[in-house]
Amino acid sequence: MKVLILGGGGFVGQKLARSLVARGTLRGENIKTLVLADVVDPAVVEAPFGVEVATCDISDPDQVNQLISEDVDVIYLLAAIVSGQAEEDLDLGMRINMMGTLNVLERCRALPHAPVVVFTSSVACFGGDLPDVITDQTLLNPQTSYGAQKAIGELLINDYSRRGLIDGRGFRLPTISVRPGKPNRAASGFMSSIFREPLNGMTSNCPVSRDFPHFYLSPRKCIENLIKGAEISAEDFGQNRCMTMPGQNLTIGAMIDAMTAVAGPEPEKLITYETDEDVWAIAKGWQFTFKTDKARALGLTADESFEENIRYYIEDDQPNA
Amino acid sequence: MKVLILGGGGFVGQKLARSLVARGTLRGENIKTLVLADVVDPAVVEAPFGVEVATCDISDPDQVNQLISEDVDVIYLLAAIVSGQAEEDLDLGMRINMMGTLNVLERCRALPHAPVVVFTSSVACFGGDLPDVITDQTLLNPQTSYGAQKAIGELLINDYSRRGLIDGRGFRLPTISVRPGKPNRAASGFMSSIFREPLNGMTSNCPVSRDFPHFYLSPRKCIENLIKGAEISAEDFGQNRCMTMPGQNLTIGAMIDAMTAVAGPEPEKLITYETDEDVWAIAKGWQFTFKTDKARALGLTADESFEENIRYYIEDDQPNA
Repeated sequence: MKVLILGGGGFVGQKLARSLVARGTLRGENIKTLVLADVVDPAVVEAPFGVEVATCDISDPDQVNQLISEDVDVIYLLAAIVSGQAEEDLDLGMRINMMGTLNVLERCRALPHAPVVVFTSSVACFGGDLPDVITDQTLLNPQTSYGAQKAIGELLINDYSRRGLIDGRGFRLPTISVRPGKPNRAASGFMSSIFREPLNGMTSNCPVSRDFPHFYLSPRKCIENLIKGAEISAEDFGQNRCMTMPGQNLTIGAMIDAMTAVAGPEPEKLITYETDEDVWAIAKGWQFTFKTDKARALGLTADESFEENIRYYIEDDQPNA
Repeated sequence: MKVLILGGGGFVGQKLARSLVARGTLRGENIKTLVLADVVDPAVVEAPFGVEVATCDISDPDQVNQLISEDVDVIYLLAAIVSGQAEEDLDLGMRINMMGTLNVLERCRALPHAPVVVFTSSVACFGGDLPDVITDQTLLNPQTSYGAQKAIGELLINDYSRRGLIDGRGFRLPTISVRPGKPNRAASGFMSSIFREPLNGMTSNCPVSRDFPHFYLSPRKCIENLIKGAEISAEDFGQNRCMTMPGQNLTIGAMIDAMTAVAGPEPEKLITYETDEDVWAIAKGWQFTFKTDKARALGLTADESFEENIRYYIEDDQPNA
């Protein structure tokens, strides 16, 4: 079993790599080789089997063709330009998020057997006039270029799977919180930083009000779901390979209360509330409530409460914890 | 007012050109130039103003950039590889239907003002597990490569419009019946040929049963709607520029009865009923019922009965009629 993680240098890619190493198996087979690829050399992950690192710009078909070897069994396609940056730079987002995805699928098409491709999509695929509850049957009507590019990726994953060229599966990630590390350029960044920074004794600004509702998942559960997602039998997907990954529907206020329940009253005092018009212009379209029946029926799960998300951050990611 | 029809050599493009010439105006302005472009030289349409013809392969960005001049006001993007052929040849469909659309939008992005772009999409965007009635909020889940490519086109039309790079509007055409001329490679071709050939004294095979339900529009109404579609104010679209064009929900049997009501009992006797597995593999996913509230609210309409469709064919298109 050879596994390739495109976007293997990102925080999801690195956590996924460490989880795969800890398991040692995927789809019932021993992992013999794990390749981590990213635009810059990803950090190596220690393992009892071969771990390779590689650089690859997925917008370049030659680099993709060279990277993806004939013996690959499972490809995680996590590499992406995030929402804020894709909105700023249409060319870059199109090149990586749309053409990069297509380049990977075209390479898979040329392989002697169709690999499993696990694609991370996003709830940013939803937007515009929405029903009160978003289900597996809700129209994808993105209101950002990032969402449009991810929705295009889903259509490609579905069509290439239907044709038997890949065995694809796509999961729209909820907003991942609490993300470790530094803020990135995702417009959703504040939904992690208002917990992460205060838990580390630093101030952080919340650009929306406490009653802002959204849909969240912890990194730990996200990784569990990405592994389960590779293991679902192809025939169980029916006529759509893409779906929303389970998460929790919560307000920012409820999440802050969960932080206080776990970590005491001090962190909350470090949160400021100043509206950011640029973030709000994007985030106002994200006041979603989700039902994720299909993913749950296929065995994917969400955190039980946001207190878990806070604890997981402290256990897994807090510096010097 | 300068109007460009990409796909101007096809039957919709030619009919649209003749209607635009007959009107002489679009969006309240006199048409000064009409350009018909296609992969092979389109037939010239006589007009009291300038009509140019040009060849253009929209999959070639250089040809697109050369064709689309800075002074274009309205572009009809009708050019496409049809469903049967796009299913047979994935490369060709991707090149024309996906990359060709993107090439046109990228050229529009470089123009000094954002042109109106009218994009013809398809009800083939719908598929898989569907509700009893397809509405403006139903998920696009195509089960053909043609449908996937058209759904991608819609996402691009929406995103480029949202960014102000074009003033786009996309209409999912119902199956057009009765189409004039020869059969094309669309899997839906029989839905015209079983009327057209018998009305002209020739036999034709119906590969589905009389109770097959589907969604239809006459060429005449389609052209009317494409003209209205260019004239809708941008602000009236809300957060989605794409929608299904109105049509009639009918069974094949009801349509044959309408032909008999208009043309007498002889044509029906020329229809044979032999199942075609290849056509059925695609057409079985098309047993749709539609509600097209958004398009109707914006002023688009359907035929009143299929007897109109038969009469329009006899009036507009029947050879030697």
